[in-house]
Amino acid sequence: MTFQGPPVNSMSLDFLTEFAISMEKLELDKSCRGVILTSGLPKIFSAGLDITEMYGKGPEHAAVFWRAVQEMWLKLYGSNMVTIAAINGSSPAGGCLMALSCDYRIMADNPRYSIGLNETLLGIVAPFWFMDTMNNTIGNRETEKALQLGLLYSTSDALKAGLVDELVPEEKVLTTATEAMAKWLSIPDHSRQITKSMMRKQTIDKLSSNRETDVNYFVKFITKDSIQKSLGMYLAMLKKRKA
Amino acid sequence: MTFQGPPVNSMSLDFLTEFAISMEKLELDKSCRGVILTSGLPKIFSAGLDITEMYGKGPEHAAVFWRAVQEMWLKLYGSNMVTIAAINGSSPAGGCLMALSCDYRIMADNPRYSIGLNETLLGIVAPFWFMDTMNNTIGNRETEKALQLGLLYSTSDALKAGLVDELVPEEKVLTTATEAMAKWLSIPDHSRQITKSMMRKQTIDKLSSNRETDVNYFVKFITKDSIQKSLGMYLAMLKKRKA
Amino acid sequence: MTFQGPPVNSMSLDFLTEFAISMEKLELDKSCRGVILTSGLPKIFSAGLDITEMYGKGPEHAAVFWRAVQEMWLKLYGSNMVTIAAINGSSPAGGCLMALSCDYRIMADNPRYSIGLNETLLGIVAPFWFMDTMNNTIGNRETEKALQLGLLYSTSDALKAGLVDELVPEEKVLTTATEAMAKWLSIPDHSRQITKSMMRKQTIDKLSSNRETDVNYFVKFITKDSIQKSLGMYLAMLKKRKA
Repeated sequence: MTFQGPPVNSMSLDFLTEFAISMEKLELDKSCRGVILTSGLPKIFSAGLDITEMYGKGPEHAAVFWRAVQEMWLKLYGSNMVTIAAINGSSPAGGCLMALSCDYRIMADNPRYSIGLNETLLGIVAPFWFMDTMNNTIGNRETEKALQLGLLYSTSDALKAGLVDELVPEEKVLTTATEAMAKWLSIPDHSRQITKSMMRKQTIDKLSSNRETDVNYFVKFITKDSIQKSLGMYLAMLKKRKA
Repeated sequence: MTFQGPPVNSMSLDFLTEFAISMEKLELDKSCRGVILTSGLPKIFSAGLDITEMYGKGPEHAAVFWRAVQEMWLKLYGSNMVTIAAINGSSPAGGCLMALSCDYRIMADNPRYSIGLNETLLGIVAPFWFMDTMNNTIGNRETEKALQLGLLYSTSDALKAGLVDELVPEEKVLTTATEAMAKWLSIPDHSRQITKSMMRKQTIDKLSSNRETDVNYFVKFITKDSIQKSLGMYLAMLKKRKA
Repeated sequence: MTFQGPPVNSMSLDFLTEFAISMEKLELDKSCRGVILTSGLPKIFSAGLDITEMYGKGPEHAAVFWRAVQEMWLKLYGSNMVTIAAINGSSPAGGCLMALSCDYRIMADNPRYSIGLNETLLGIVAPFWFMDTMNNTIGNRETEKALQLGLLYSTSDALKAGLVDELVPEEKVLTTATEAMAKWLSIPDHSRQITKSMMRKQTIDKLSSNRETDVNYFVKFITKDSIQKSLGMYLAMLKKRKA
């Protein structure tokens, strides 16, 4: 699956909806046993959640948007397929979550790329299931530090922390992902799927049995004046940087 | 305690029953404060659960067998004694579980030996308490990868992942284990025992309060036609390899 | 905050009470966003709980003392401020707990200094919330080994295990802590505080909703004849060593 949402694969409501539909189709397609996520754009895997969906759009829109974010994660983290992230660019915030939700992560070894859950830097907070997904991958201490500081890891630091599994030269990201996929697909599907589901069930249940509470919490938080102001300043800064 | 079950210390019902009785005796013997587990056979610590006990024997036998597997783990993981694995050979599946359930693991640094929970490779699934025991030792991410892929680690990879604590030349495995035992026994018994029990209680309770549910789940799974077929093919492959 | 309790910053009832009051004041002071903990004495950060408070003083005193120990930890681990430990000396037992409860740990790289929860060596047991705090920092396996053996880590082993975040020459401990504080304070307070609280809430709730049970357990344990005897022998040994 190749992300084609210029300029930076922001996860807009449209992006998330299309992603969930694609995942559902693949999940039901018995001839499809695995999926590689990668970007069709240069330098960026995904810039994460589209902030314009959360800024000045009112509580109803925020709720609809947040359900789509939840759906993306539930579909990906709970997928029966082998999921591999071929991270061929920077991957902040929601982009990092997407990578963390896969079974295996290969990143382009480019010193200009970074990856991490940097929400605190924008004045917002990674929700508990972002936190759990990171905790399941790099452990409690590293997660606590990463989330409090909003760390964006360089590729080598990401490898050291266990945020990605492998670094390869940029032009080899996809072929390495394809080789890794072959290895994962050599395992009998039913054993692998039951094992994966046993490992992830508790984390998934925590959200899936509390989706509306989580939506309400998000809407209440994101519509606060102080948070809207933070987001507004961030968007202004992005605009300036572009110009 | 030296395993002497040629050719590969398979954990048959007899093996497991004898193990549980021995552990119970040692536990009650106040002069015995620690036990070193090792193999009396060349090249193998233990090949894990005896598959012939699970193949074509019917649900009653499967239930009896599974209770014995549970008993082995509960006795070992919950032991008040210091338990050290002197891993002088390969240690797949149930053999790996046994090592993981000890307090300390020393492995012979022999490139032909491997260790891991490779159940998925055989088309079966490590039950939740195998998973928990590995998770408690090497953390969530490494466990997820190891169990999904059925990884058999080389000795150096096992050390790196924390699956074993120490690698030593083969002829020094037992003397190193004896030295480690002296160190562990220098700690006041009651403090060490309370500490160990506090650390492992939650994991042990999860099984001990759900033994029959776990037995029923196992019996239902292992008696499935598809699983019996997988096991049959595996046994045929083993026979061929021997010949 | 500089500890000035000669000779070794033992956590007496007075020390703990003063610490809790100071933390409360700082917490309420809106101009104070972070605190660095360090020692004003040479060679020692803190020697941990004052054993004379637990020896031969009766159950009432033990209960009062234990509530003060709980209070110290709840105030520190649950602080809204950025908390940094500038560990300029050895830091056994309660001293290690204090360091582990901060957000970041910088230790003087001096081969004579050590750090760890060594309770089992004295014939006592680290309570569950010491255990949880260590587990949250260095993971389950390392914690199990460290607590069973009562390990005191050398500075380099402490860094390797993740017990401290950074080693620096002794004269640079405070300046490094100040630099780290600046970095942590560059994060928007409210995002950082919510994130920290989400990460630590479960661990804190486990104690704060069971304080009196924990007090009763401690009093019953510490007033046992066998434990009092262990503590008496340890105090006699300390006296001899001093003389």
